Amino acid sequence: MRGFYIGRFQPYHNGHQHMVEEIIEEVDELVLGIGSADASHTVRNPFTAGERVMMVTKSVAPLDLTTYVVPIEDIDRNSVWVSHVRSMSPAFDVAYSNNPLVVQLFREAGVEVRGSPMYNRDELEGTELRERMRVGDRWEHLVPDPVVEVVHAVGGIERLRRVADTDANGDEAAVEAAEAAADEGGPDA
Amino acid sequence: MRGFYIGRFQPYHNGHQHMVEEIIEEVDELVLGIGSADASHTVRNPFTAGERVMMVTKSVAPLDLTTYVVPIEDIDRNSVWVSHVRSMSPAFDVAYSNNPLVVQLFREAGVEVRGSPMYNRDELEGTELRERMRVGDRWEHLVPDPVVEVVHAVGGIERLRRVADTDANGDEAAVEAAEAAADEGGPDA
Amino acid sequence: MRGFYIGRFQPYHNGHQHMVEEIIEEVDELVLGIGSADASHTVRNPFTAGERVMMVTKSVAPLDLTTYVVPIEDIDRNSVWVSHVRSMSPAFDVAYSNNPLVVQLFREAGVEVRGSPMYNRDELEGTELRERMRVGDRWEHLVPDPVVEVVHAVGGIERLRRVADTDANGDEAAVEAAEAAADEGGPDA
Amino acid sequence: MRGFYIGRFQPYHNGHQHMVEEIIEEVDELVLGIGSADASHTVRNPFTAGERVMMVTKSVAPLDLTTYVVPIEDIDRNSVWVSHVRSMSPAFDVAYSNNPLVVQLFREAGVEVRGSPMYNRDELEGTELRERMRVGDRWEHLVPDPVVEVVHAVGGIERLRRVADTDANGDEAAVEAAEAAADEGGPDA
Amino acid sequence: MRGFYIGRFQPYHNGHQHMVEEIIEEVDELVLGIGSADASHTVRNPFTAGERVMMVTKSVAPLDLTTYVVPIEDIDRNSVWVSHVRSMSPAFDVAYSNNPLVVQLFREAGVEVRGSPMYNRDELEGTELRERMRVGDRWEHLVPDPVVEVVHAVGGIERLRRVADTDANGDEAAVEAAEAAADEGGPDA
Amino acid sequence: MRGFYIGRFQPYHNGHQHMVEEIIEEVDELVLGIGSADASHTVRNPFTAGERVMMVTKSVAPLDLTTYVVPIEDIDRNSVWVSHVRSMSPAFDVAYSNNPLVVQLFREAGVEVRGSPMYNRDELEGTELRERMRVGDRWEHLVPDPVVEVVHAVGGIERLRRVADTDANGDEAAVEAAEAAADEGGPDA
Repeated sequence: MRGFYIGRFQPYHNGHQHMVEEIIEEVDELVLGIGSADASHTVRNPFTAGERVMMVTKSVAPLDLTTYVVPIEDIDRNSVWVSHVRSMSPAFDVAYSNNPLVVQLFREAGVEVRGSPMYNRDELEGTELRERMRVGDRWEHLVPDPVVEVVHAVGGIERLRRVADTDANGDEAAVEAAEAAADEGGPDA
Repeated sequence: MRGFYIGRFQPYHNGHQHMVEEIIEEVDELVLGIGSADASHTVRNPFTAGERVMMVTKSVAPLDLTTYVVPIEDIDRNSVWVSHVRSMSPAFDVAYSNNPLVVQLFREAGVEVRGSPMYNRDELEGTELRERMRVGDRWEHLVPDPVVEVVHAVGGIERLRRVADTDANGDEAAVEAAEAAADEGGPDA
Repeated sequence: MRGFYIGRFQPYHNGHQHMVEEIIEEVDELVLGIGSADASHTVRNPFTAGERVMMVTKSVAPLDLTTYVVPIEDIDRNSVWVSHVRSMSPAFDVAYSNNPLVVQLFREAGVEVRGSPMYNRDELEGTELRERMRVGDRWEHLVPDPVVEVVHAVGGIERLRRVADTDANGDEAAVEAAEAAADEGGPDA
Repeated sequence: MRGFYIGRFQPYHNGHQHMVEEIIEEVDELVLGIGSADASHTVRNPFTAGERVMMVTKSVAPLDLTTYVVPIEDIDRNSVWVSHVRSMSPAFDVAYSNNPLVVQLFREAGVEVRGSPMYNRDELEGTELRERMRVGDRWEHLVPDPVVEVVHAVGGIERLRRVADTDANGDEAAVEAAEAAADEGGPDA
Repeated sequence: MRGFYIGRFQPYHNGHQHMVEEIIEEVDELVLGIGSADASHTVRNPFTAGERVMMVTKSVAPLDLTTYVVPIEDIDRNSVWVSHVRSMSPAFDVAYSNNPLVVQLFREAGVEVRGSPMYNRDELEGTELRERMRVGDRWEHLVPDPVVEVVHAVGGIERLRRVADTDANGDEAAVEAAEAAADEGGPDA
Repeated sequence: MRGFYIGRFQPYHNGHQHMVEEIIEEVDELVLGIGSADASHTVRNPFTAGERVMMVTKSVAPLDLTTYVVPIEDIDRNSVWVSHVRSMSPAFDVAYSNNPLVVQLFREAGVEVRGSPMYNRDELEGTELRERMRVGDRWEHLVPDPVVEVVHAVGGIERLRRVADTDANGDEAAVEAAEAAADEGGPDA
């Protein structure tokens, strides 16, 4: 059986890794879809798809599982998003997501979806991680080692601080909320 | 004489129906343009264009008027929006709208626009309707009967609640305001 | 039962009308999808979506059938085309098409498709019609009366000749073949 | 040496003009890139690219410098934005910007960037200018004379007020902040 | 009076220059629109918009005329093309073109168009020029001097030969014809 | 050292596999970019990106090499194509391609490119393979075993025949040539 797990992975962190470790109890192969693949250099989406491909591939390599890591560009149209995902991914039997919109879209399309009880926890952890990176708190212990390497190799901390300046007047949580609301038109998981 | 009336119709409600009943005093034929046709499965735009085509067509069928119900996808560029509308619609002599941006764009293009005195009332009623649907208040008496049927047939209430969860932390009015601001780049009436 | 019949309708002609007359033996309601709605002012697609909405609506009005006439913009991605169509159209139970790509895409998506034995005859008739318009042969007897009116009202013959000049060096059949091949990336029926 | 200076120029004002006067101490030729060229008729982007081409060209004409005024449409993808700019502009040796995202993108692409010490002052002045236009305060002394002419010729004040109404419930600063956040996906300088 | 002259200018050649010299008898200011601005690195469109901005600006500089050189990206939708052009260009009173599609679109939009008697001569000269560049014949005497400089500065001859190889099996005229046919969906003048 | 090898892989065949076997003499890690990822269900591009991800991943799994298999959607703009590729791929030191346009674009961007002496042989083999599939000749011995499995699992032969019918009047070579010419605006390798 093949599963599909989608996230923005900005960056890939221990919460994602634990979710993958749970999923592999249930599937033989796993597709990891990198959502909003076309986004980068923003507060919410600092890393490019290629950088995230690297983070994810290196982090799941030690696991005993056949994996596919597939960037999924936003298509800005909820009604065709499931077809878009399916065209980019090897065929899968079950999708994993905690994002209510993603769950709704897959269910309307007749795809089985499984989630974990913690609502949106991935998302919250991602926001906190990026905030720690920005203000200079420790973050390295919250992500798999290969992610630390990628972030440093691409100058990710400086990039994140610079783009956070663009959104300017301070309060990152407010900026992220506005950005999230502005994302309408396609799930970015 | 043929008129053109555009709205997002999320969903089509009694306020829209009354506007149509007023317009038919002035025209022989009426085009109903369904704005933001490509949007669906969001708090502000829960229903697909096809679902809205159904709501509108069934609701105006009893009226004594030749009608055309035409989905209009967003084109994300105010400066070409009027040309886009004209290419999708049978030719019309007068446009009906209360949206100031729509009025401005039609006037700059030399199209006659008529409105009603109540500023943006359609929009406010739509927001309240969706809020009632979400929290479980009565809403069925605020829309024509065929709309109730369509909403139930497509599982519209559950869908709306699920996508509202995605926008998460609660305050729907704030989410709608942010979404509306984010809509910049094309009128969605 | 509701059916869905898609064509480019450039222009809507007697072959289309006969197909509709056959379909209404089998369905209660019919959606007529106007493909390549965003195309106009070319040899293969001379008329705008709005002009075609008019042609089709007026031509099917005398038939005893509830109809919906819906422009469908090209989405340039075969893998999501069926989802796109479904989002723009009222829900349907069966699709009607003679276009092999359309048939294939609907079938892969689990939609029942019915066709007529004449392969691609709609398409061939459309090409011949446009050629007659261009060179000045009689064409009015090959289309329903409302189509004649629309073509004349919009100056369609002059438009067609002018855009055919753009493609220049003569042989319209060759131009159409090249244009058709160039259409790859989305069915335009 | 050729420089590149990008701004949205909504509208072009004395702050921009002073920046240009400083830049010409350092370069022989200057490309003025008009960002978000596809945006118009919004609170943050009231003027079309063509109107801004006019404002800028007429304002820099008296300066002793070879200039190129080039509209740059948004490309909604930070990772390719620099390549996009380079394809639209004559080749340049140094870029001028105070926008941290623009600075970051150019630096990652190996382009030299120079800025002025005042962080984002251009932007703040633009916001204030548009607010003055909207509420009826004096603004003409804050822009070069040709800008006054263009604004009046296109009915810019009325347009700005009308589109501000669309964003409705009042507080323009809040609207601009939300719009700015929603801009994610491409620098608009 | 301000005129608008659009071409792809791949490259700008003496035929274009002569046309400009005729036009300046009739207008005070001239906008030169660079069509298909987003295209480059193909047989039909070897040069980027920025390279063409340079060619045109330097070539018209000696003429006694106020000029604006404006890249116009393709918008792939004939029905909105005129609005798109108008949004990117300073307002103009008359358009100059020999392209029948461009003429038709401007006329349907109520814009005055003037042409020269030679049908499509610009286009034919462009094709021949590119063929000369490709096979190694003399071409420098057919373009203004600044164009020679730009072509050499960007390695244009080698680029053209390389991309011609991509289209492979030889006959460039056939490739250009197929490409031209494939361009449907927007005038590229 | 990490290499990047791009192809459309429609389907992945022994020619590609041999190229990969040569490349791994020179690199430690290899990114396989799947070009035209958004195309499917056409004569030239019968398989979806997801199906090709499967073909390639399974075929290179036995090789002693760390690989990344990354779908790359077309971006329809040669001038930003390299940036697009880089944003989707882990960073690479050298690109492998025999496509002259791809070579030219990488070189203009300062990326080292290596090719093999056989010009466009990959491409020719792909065309012949699809022709064999269409007419019913043996093709299975020309591709790695996992490709045979994928093609059969998705009903690839029937799909290819059906879409070839759409392009109708017979001569597949002509159709492919026209389609290839129509591809202008982005390398699809």
